[in-house]
Amino acid sequence: MPQANAYAAQSEQSVLAPHTIERRALRPDDVAIAIDYCGVCHTDIHFAQNDWGMTQYPVVPGHEIVGRVTAVGSAVSGFKPGDVVGVGCMVDSCRHCDPCQEGLEQYCLEGPTLTYNGQDRHDHTVTFGGYSEAIVVSDRFVVSIPEALDPAAAAPLLCAGITTYSPLRHYGVKAGDKVGVIGMGGLGHMGIKFAKALGAEVTVFTRSPEKVDEARAQGASQVIVSTDEAQMEAAAGSFDFMLDTVPVQHDLNPYLALLRHDGTHILVGLLEPVEPPLNAGNLVFGRRVLAGSLIGGMPETQGVLDFCAAHGIACDVEMLDIRNINEAYERVKKGDVKYRFVIDMATLKVDG
Amino acid sequence: MPQANAYAAQSEQSVLAPHTIERRALRPDDVAIAIDYCGVCHTDIHFAQNDWGMTQYPVVPGHEIVGRVTAVGSAVSGFKPGDVVGVGCMVDSCRHCDPCQEGLEQYCLEGPTLTYNGQDRHDHTVTFGGYSEAIVVSDRFVVSIPEALDPAAAAPLLCAGITTYSPLRHYGVKAGDKVGVIGMGGLGHMGIKFAKALGAEVTVFTRSPEKVDEARAQGASQVIVSTDEAQMEAAAGSFDFMLDTVPVQHDLNPYLALLRHDGTHILVGLLEPVEPPLNAGNLVFGRRVLAGSLIGGMPETQGVLDFCAAHGIACDVEMLDIRNINEAYERVKKGDVKYRFVIDMATLKVDG
Repeated sequence: MPQANAYAAQSEQSVLAPHTIERRALRPDDVAIAIDYCGVCHTDIHFAQNDWGMTQYPVVPGHEIVGRVTAVGSAVSGFKPGDVVGVGCMVDSCRHCDPCQEGLEQYCLEGPTLTYNGQDRHDHTVTFGGYSEAIVVSDRFVVSIPEALDPAAAAPLLCAGITTYSPLRHYGVKAGDKVGVIGMGGLGHMGIKFAKALGAEVTVFTRSPEKVDEARAQGASQVIVSTDEAQMEAAAGSFDFMLDTVPVQHDLNPYLALLRHDGTHILVGLLEPVEPPLNAGNLVFGRRVLAGSLIGGMPETQGVLDFCAAHGIACDVEMLDIRNINEAYERVKKGDVKYRFVIDMATLKVDG
Repeated sequence: MPQANAYAAQSEQSVLAPHTIERRALRPDDVAIAIDYCGVCHTDIHFAQNDWGMTQYPVVPGHEIVGRVTAVGSAVSGFKPGDVVGVGCMVDSCRHCDPCQEGLEQYCLEGPTLTYNGQDRHDHTVTFGGYSEAIVVSDRFVVSIPEALDPAAAAPLLCAGITTYSPLRHYGVKAGDKVGVIGMGGLGHMGIKFAKALGAEVTVFTRSPEKVDEARAQGASQVIVSTDEAQMEAAAGSFDFMLDTVPVQHDLNPYLALLRHDGTHILVGLLEPVEPPLNAGNLVFGRRVLAGSLIGGMPETQGVLDFCAAHGIACDVEMLDIRNINEAYERVKKGDVKYRFVIDMATLKVDG
């Protein structure tokens, strides 16, 4: 069935053009999904604009997908037409390596198949993401959206949500822990909610004094303006965990000094070389830990949805008409969204 | 009682001069020790030669001390004259902060009192270390040397030993784990022995192809020449733990790539800025951990001695006449010792 799709155009041409792609016929383990909502992740912008030099055009971004099942393959037992489901950053993996066996498909030794700009492991076609009417995904990589969740607000849980939830759970954040959240964008605001739901006392670090009230409204019991040295020094040695959502280079050393002994600084946004350089003494003195974490595996992705349903947590979203995607990208780049754009895919069908 | 002491001379004067210091009268919790052996740690050289700009002369280095109890204070019940005992890198701490309460005195929030070039918490005098006939230390910072251990070979366990033992235990290295040990000096050769005694399969990383046989003789089941890119690439993703004993700047990225997902790289030697810069992606992809560790607390320092007694582990030492200390320092700087110099303090008394 050919379908209308939106894609962000190549290089300098910032236009939105309709494009027709063929979704594959159902394999036995496939779930066909009519997409209702798709979150806008900063990664989408990097791919749409080929910031990382690896984009294969045409690209259909989007990996925070929520929709309804329209059909299932012959071997699918966990989903049926009408189910509200989600798809995140991955649509396949090797399934046999140690990480895959452990349900940590994001660390698949052969590399997971990304939801877009990836390569299908069977027919080797390029994968297309969620800025689209429909998607077909193997059932292992489909999750159920609990009824208690608003489907639009659930979409960003598939990337921004799981990315912050997974390390907080992996490192066992618990009641009474002092957790710092660095950055208050799509990821950071979810980190605040999760840490608070786990019983932690949450401090938000922001460079912007004007965000202090916002951070408190999100649940932070303390807000530290990271450019204020006196505030930073007063907090030395007091944190158990630091959830660092900043995706650009920044000095980690002042934050490491804020950790208690045995404290852990978790990077979920930074993929660059650490500059200014990490001071190794900040790890050795205090037996501190610097760790990284990438989205989450499929069992835990279901887990974050269930956790949100149980705790009444949702992402704060601004609904978006897909015809405004390029303006939305510019606003995301400026951090001008509270806190995640979600495309209402009905706006695509109007054009279809 | 005034005693003869050796000290490495200031700055450029590489001479050995006798110096008389007064050891304090016993406080109720004090243990007076006649020193028989003292290991030579690279840190001693840094302090003797004021490499870190913080030396207070005269300095008496030495924090791998083994000797016999000569007297105890009125409140000491755990030691009696004649006991063979050890003193490591610390002689006091605040005793009331969280780390101290947890037996992690090395992370004392007020800073532990170092065995030499530290400041006594009571009389504010400078502390003098183990290149000496005697030392007086509060009982909390004295450990028992098990009878099964050769006292000379036990001395380096107080620093080189505990420094490598502590993180292997803290991170739960166990039978079947694949452990890499980077560097094969005083610390590294102990790391090999401990990891092997814990049941791990040990690989040694060395820049020197001529050290391959040595490393195997120490118990390594595999040796990788770290400058050989093909060998490094072949080992990608295969290690659970990396014990990094290198005290100078080196590129961590090729080693991080050798870790499995959830693997841990432990720094015990490096205190400098990490250059070339750490690539954050190496932590995020694979959920890898970069951690630091500093010596060990007092309960664990007793623990490493007991572990060595139980497992027949000793440090490989070269006995040293203290009159040759300056030559020994030059050899340590060149890595020309297998694997730790230990001063026979009887050679000091000859001069006394």
